[in-house]
Amino acid sequence: MTSQATTLKGQPLDKPVLDAMLRRRMFYTPSFEIYGGVGGLYDYGPPGCALQANIVDIWRKHFVLEEDMLEVDCTALTPHDILKTSGHVDKFSDFMCKDPKNGEIMRADHFVEAVLEARLKGDKEARGQKVEEKEDDPKKKKKKAKTEAVKLDDAVVQEYEEVLAKIDNYGGPELGELIKKYDLKNPATGLLPTEPVAFNLMFQTSIGPSSNLPGFLRPETAQGQFLNFAKLLEFNQSQMPFASASIGKSYRNEISPRAGLLRVREFLMAEIEHYVDPEGGKKHSRFHEVENLELVLLDKGTQLSGKTTTKTMTIGQAVKEGVVDNETLGYFLARIHLFLQKIGVDMSKMRFRQHMANEMAHYACDCWDAELYTTTGWVECVGCADRSAYDLTVHAKKTGAPLVVRERLEKPLVIEEWQVDIDKKKFGPLFKKDAKAVEAALEATTQEQREAFSKQLTEGGKITLDVPGVGDGKAEVTSDSIKIEFRKRVENTREFTPNVIEPSFGIGRILYSLIEHNFWTRGNDGTDEARGVLSFPPPVAPTKVLLVPLSSNAQFKPEVRKLSQRLRAMGISSRVDDSSASIGKRYSRNDELGTPLGITVDFQTLQDQTITLRDRDSTTQVRADEAKILEAVRSLVDGSKDWAKIQSELPKFEGQEVEVAQR
Amino acid sequence: MTSQATTLKGQPLDKPVLDAMLRRRMFYTPSFEIYGGVGGLYDYGPPGCALQANIVDIWRKHFVLEEDMLEVDCTALTPHDILKTSGHVDKFSDFMCKDPKNGEIMRADHFVEAVLEARLKGDKEARGQKVEEKEDDPKKKKKKAKTEAVKLDDAVVQEYEEVLAKIDNYGGPELGELIKKYDLKNPATGLLPTEPVAFNLMFQTSIGPSSNLPGFLRPETAQGQFLNFAKLLEFNQSQMPFASASIGKSYRNEISPRAGLLRVREFLMAEIEHYVDPEGGKKHSRFHEVENLELVLLDKGTQLSGKTTTKTMTIGQAVKEGVVDNETLGYFLARIHLFLQKIGVDMSKMRFRQHMANEMAHYACDCWDAELYTTTGWVECVGCADRSAYDLTVHAKKTGAPLVVRERLEKPLVIEEWQVDIDKKKFGPLFKKDAKAVEAALEATTQEQREAFSKQLTEGGKITLDVPGVGDGKAEVTSDSIKIEFRKRVENTREFTPNVIEPSFGIGRILYSLIEHNFWTRGNDGTDEARGVLSFPPPVAPTKVLLVPLSSNAQFKPEVRKLSQRLRAMGISSRVDDSSASIGKRYSRNDELGTPLGITVDFQTLQDQTITLRDRDSTTQVRADEAKILEAVRSLVDGSKDWAKIQSELPKFEGQEVEVAQR
Repeated sequence: MTSQATTLKGQPLDKPVLDAMLRRRMFYTPSFEIYGGVGGLYDYGPPGCALQANIVDIWRKHFVLEEDMLEVDCTALTPHDILKTSGHVDKFSDFMCKDPKNGEIMRADHFVEAVLEARLKGDKEARGQKVEEKEDDPKKKKKKAKTEAVKLDDAVVQEYEEVLAKIDNYGGPELGELIKKYDLKNPATGLLPTEPVAFNLMFQTSIGPSSNLPGFLRPETAQGQFLNFAKLLEFNQSQMPFASASIGKSYRNEISPRAGLLRVREFLMAEIEHYVDPEGGKKHSRFHEVENLELVLLDKGTQLSGKTTTKTMTIGQAVKEGVVDNETLGYFLARIHLFLQKIGVDMSKMRFRQHMANEMAHYACDCWDAELYTTTGWVECVGCADRSAYDLTVHAKKTGAPLVVRERLEKPLVIEEWQVDIDKKKFGPLFKKDAKAVEAALEATTQEQREAFSKQLTEGGKITLDVPGVGDGKAEVTSDSIKIEFRKRVENTREFTPNVIEPSFGIGRILYSLIEHNFWTRGNDGTDEARGVLSFPPPVAPTKVLLVPLSSNAQFKPEVRKLSQRLRAMGISSRVDDSSASIGKRYSRNDELGTPLGITVDFQTLQDQTITLRDRDSTTQVRADEAKILEAVRSLVDGSKDWAKIQSELPKFEGQEVEVAQR
Repeated sequence: MTSQATTLKGQPLDKPVLDAMLRRRMFYTPSFEIYGGVGGLYDYGPPGCALQANIVDIWRKHFVLEEDMLEVDCTALTPHDILKTSGHVDKFSDFMCKDPKNGEIMRADHFVEAVLEARLKGDKEARGQKVEEKEDDPKKKKKKAKTEAVKLDDAVVQEYEEVLAKIDNYGGPELGELIKKYDLKNPATGLLPTEPVAFNLMFQTSIGPSSNLPGFLRPETAQGQFLNFAKLLEFNQSQMPFASASIGKSYRNEISPRAGLLRVREFLMAEIEHYVDPEGGKKHSRFHEVENLELVLLDKGTQLSGKTTTKTMTIGQAVKEGVVDNETLGYFLARIHLFLQKIGVDMSKMRFRQHMANEMAHYACDCWDAELYTTTGWVECVGCADRSAYDLTVHAKKTGAPLVVRERLEKPLVIEEWQVDIDKKKFGPLFKKDAKAVEAALEATTQEQREAFSKQLTEGGKITLDVPGVGDGKAEVTSDSIKIEFRKRVENTREFTPNVIEPSFGIGRILYSLIEHNFWTRGNDGTDEARGVLSFPPPVAPTKVLLVPLSSNAQFKPEVRKLSQRLRAMGISSRVDDSSASIGKRYSRNDELGTPLGITVDFQTLQDQTITLRDRDSTTQVRADEAKILEAVRSLVDGSKDWAKIQSELPKFEGQEVEVAQR
């Protein structure tokens, strides 16, 4: 699976051919192209837009509706303070270095990777081995380093390979050291690039007319969800666990965006924040529904040992063995697997890869990526992170908002402990303006301190307390204003900050990978030009039915219009192609658009009201009256029947192209 | 209709009560509230989010699918050059003025309006007339000017009223003059504010790591659609007319955003760009389908005369009389009307208002707003502008991209005209580096000039041509290098820049107005506390069905789970409320959420498998077996039956609350 990417039918995938087709059919296109374009910004044309909408629709049904998640829609504009607290202002960066001569800016990890890979390739050439060409990698700005066929020591080859296996695990200083250690020069100038420096990936702006409120475009939808936690918990009638979800654009000012949808600066995300009680091992009540599902896993230990070998195991087993930390994380990995399968991902080109420690985002304590294999290698399409209580804790601390769950205990908790009683009437006048600070210092004492203080109060009638910022930093408290006693206390509620499990989907990357996984070419035994087909499953296909009149004959128009209206009423998207091109050409165009079904209206229709139905993948056709064909369409689109079943039910038809020729 | 806003049932609308309810049910909430919030930024909670999704879904079906529009999804990030060309950098501004003492920044038009309205109110008080309190107006930052009961001259009252009627028509200098003329002082300081200056409403940022590409967040989705015009035309197989459409967030850095969804800085838009041939009167092939629809119109002439009287007429009549400029514009006004009706807008609180000349956006040549009446007065919710060929022309001119339609003429056009033939071999050496400029000057000559030149060439053998920038600004061309003749020319294609009709929807404003139009309070003959109800039509209601078990008895759980799954399979959204609150409380909660239907599972269900169905608006119930009830739900949600019909088909049920009391 680390070799060349293939089409749905196992053919070598010719990316330039696919790219030309996607461009021709306007799946997506560089934004502002007539102005020369801008790296990392793409517009979706009609088929891309419909494909995206269908993926999002299935996502919403599979996750939000299936589990009664609370969907929210928060703003992308975010004031500085929130992202300062969340850690993004300080830590949401990539490392970049600069060529000292030509000023070129490069992502440091991509630079190291590119030069090392070029050396390994040169080594292979020198050893006379076959060299595989990888397409440009979304994760890496590769200097197209001219390969020189230079043989390396076996030990060096192994060292380079190990560095590459854990490339995502290096920080800026370590990348800088690798550059020096291996003398990694920019092939364009022959010079070492500058020391890597952190570049914050957020787009900055300012909010309001007086320009005094700095803000950013959100780099993830998560923060808006966290800030609404208390309201969402209340909306959910205080029931735990629960999840919020959000679908919306996020923004990252990538240092070196690549051609294509895989590393862009504005992208659609779908994120779930599932709040779970950190106690009790993060169990999930529906885990049993998925525990026997087999997943392909690449854990961090394997990667740190310099390997990329995956293991296939049921998620039940993985959680049991501790490969996956807990049931809730495991449940969502399984649900992600089922979602990708549902939309038509080739599951032989999918794996879950665990993040290594340094690779992890600053907020995460564990993370698995669902990666899909494409012409650009393995692409991380879904992240599933355990953010622990990180975000709720930092925001609560900063704002004082109680981002916690209060749970009524079934059995009240009896706690025996040292407790402080303050006689406010005496205490207040004693410390005046400092009373609050002294009280806080008292409340903050540990059980051990209290025990000692209690003894001092009994014995000496007073204690001396450290109170930073008050007088000389010390306060003397006498036994007439406070009491410290060892007593029972009954607790009826438990308060805790929930942990967050976050499945986070990059819709654009999923969409692009899905296109590659469903692409293949149809050639007429080598005699015809190969023609592209996108075999999307009907639920995600941009358009479900193509309506073609046999010719531009005016007699066909009313029938086509009627069919179009009926399909619309059934909620099935269709498009009419009444252009003058041949039926074959019109079908080919729609094979490229991934339209699974085609209905033709011909002269026979005018006589006996029958129409034909064509299957995109097999190009076979059936013929029957309108009611039967529309019912077949409905069952194919909702997935209740497949084409073989339809073929067994309705009479075969041999095709109108012949018929045209006869007339 | 300019008096106080009312509920769906004609009750005076108590906005604080509604606001409290919307907050309690988390329809929307100020973004970043735990950080103190930011003006003009709101998050949608679960019911708001679902309501928004349903409005968008109906919009997509009503416009995009119904007319085979080409939907696109373009980036919000937009480089400076595009918005410079489109005119937004120079002209997309509001006028602001500043109080010289306290530094307060105010929108100039809102300031003028507020002070004049306060004076008119004071005049009414002085005359002993009843004064109506308007809620804060989304369009206006009103200084809560303390009203003084000062009587004004009748002529002054009329003058103020006329100024207010055309307040949207003033530019910055005119607003400055009004401030001086009427001595409009800031009530907070008693000072005249500074001269109004333009404040650009776009959020600025920079794209890429080197910060050298300035950009903005788009203020409208339109530009992305225009830039893709040539590709979309090709995708549409060069057929005209056609429309593109886009649903996405846009951004405007409002000077003074108001509380609520009506003037915000980040908002969801749904925009259509319909491209039409400017020749032939902009006819529309489906105009006959809507021509008899009656619309309420307030034209610009009426407003300029200082009045706000509407006229009701069919759109057919309006186009015929020239009130609405052309069929295509009229067709979309009618379609907008039908859309608003479909989602449940109170059509007695709706009007189309035409923009006055100065009010119009810089790109528009005509514009009608669909306005909805709310507690904050008339709110512009949909704009329908004729942008003529403005945008395509400026972008084509700037980039050289051919943003035109080339149409094969059915009958080739034979044109007799004066034509210039240049003998390049002689012409080139004659003018050397200036040859191109001289050639361009020749090509640019008019028919009249050419006729005169032809004569001069024949008679004098040479002509003298104005060529700015070449030598002394004149060029002498002799008859051996050019010929000018009167000849026939056959044109097979016609090239034109299409005009754009743009219906543009502010989804948030529509959503808020829809809430007000569907809100009412239910009181039990004054004995009970009034309870809020949102009577959304089922297709837009956030959730369609509430599922309530009679009590928390475990026996009800499997039945509720089964119903929940069945409804999900039918594509009907439902929510379970198995909290310990009484059935009445649970229904009340869902009346506030606008859930149209409620199903209860009770002890009888366990015996005979029947369930009850409750109608939100009448609170009446029916009882039948599961299959019949689910079929009733389906027909109510898809609109094929109403509650009266269901009541006539299924047995009435008197309510479980009594039943509970009996047990």
